[in-house]
Amino acid sequence: MRLEKQMDFIKKLDLMKTITRRTKIVSSNRYENDAEHTFHIAAMAYILKEYAPEDCKIEKSIIMLLFHDVVEIEAGDTFAYDTQGNKTKELREQQAAHNLFGLLPEDQKEDILNLWLEFEAQETPESQFALAMDRLQPIYLNALNCGGSWRENNVEREAVINRIKGLRKVNLSLYNFALKIIDEYLPAL
Amino acid sequence: MRLEKQMDFIKKLDLMKTITRRTKIVSSNRYENDAEHTFHIAAMAYILKEYAPEDCKIEKSIIMLLFHDVVEIEAGDTFAYDTQGNKTKELREQQAAHNLFGLLPEDQKEDILNLWLEFEAQETPESQFALAMDRLQPIYLNALNCGGSWRENNVEREAVINRIKGLRKVNLSLYNFALKIIDEYLPAL
Repeated sequence: MRLEKQMDFIKKLDLMKTITRRTKIVSSNRYENDAEHTFHIAAMAYILKEYAPEDCKIEKSIIMLLFHDVVEIEAGDTFAYDTQGNKTKELREQQAAHNLFGLLPEDQKEDILNLWLEFEAQETPESQFALAMDRLQPIYLNALNCGGSWRENNVEREAVINRIKGLRKVNLSLYNFALKIIDEYLPAL
Repeated sequence: MRLEKQMDFIKKLDLMKTITRRTKIVSSNRYENDAEHTFHIAAMAYILKEYAPEDCKIEKSIIMLLFHDVVEIEAGDTFAYDTQGNKTKELREQQAAHNLFGLLPEDQKEDILNLWLEFEAQETPESQFALAMDRLQPIYLNALNCGGSWRENNVEREAVINRIKGLRKVNLSLYNFALKIIDEYLPAL
């Protein structure tokens, strides 16, 4: 019964492969999905671990990243620069978290829910480094795609700069890397 | 310079999204790619961690899984039941590992190469649990797709049973779960 619940949740995770994001992958002319994005940022967190805050347990950040977008299976992907959608995002995602993680045995529901809440609250070094990866990756993909979804959606420089504010606190090298990309594709006028 | 090397490797990882496997995803009628597969088994490893050997550090298994298929960016995916392809697989993948991990700074090249070699050697509990996830996931997808790639490719029961031998040593509950699926879709005659 316990294993069946776990396998049901694992079946549900397959849906991550069908949730389309607004960013295109670099290697092909199509949008990225949540499963691909999650793979990319989890691996990225490990490669960039030396830029994490000193007291950050990198393994915890990685596990947090593996599950941080699972709520989108029910709540959908809300485009970062969609002001309307972001107003209802919190409530939709909270409901989804309870439904989806609720497929798991009680102890695991608590565990994954707490990881997700910790990510959302942004109060620990692990969640802050995880978010840094989540923000840096689409910026990098946009750069490799010559502006990508920023140009497609007329995103303003100020909005992008605002998205990476947290990155500045986490690590200045990563922040400067992101800023260099933004300056190239969304130059200050 | 160090960060640029790391970001070059992270750019390379984008190609994982274009390497097609032989197993179809459950939520749509198309083949899975390596990035999606990697996300799925890394998350699965965390959810099924209670079935890992007692001395297995689950975080290490997860990190191993994040990079275990990266060699396919250069060496391609070799279908599990392709006897010809599997003869040259080892050499092709070793060359690819040196090229791809060689994009990283020297210390990180060593680290990821060692993780990959440990996975391939199958001598530690971490690598054995990681392989168990890698074997169980396509079996599960095939079950959810009513036989899936086994039927498409006329795979024989014996070959599939042979693929999960290691699973039996790792954990009997997981092995029995896989066996139940195989009995349903590839019944003994």
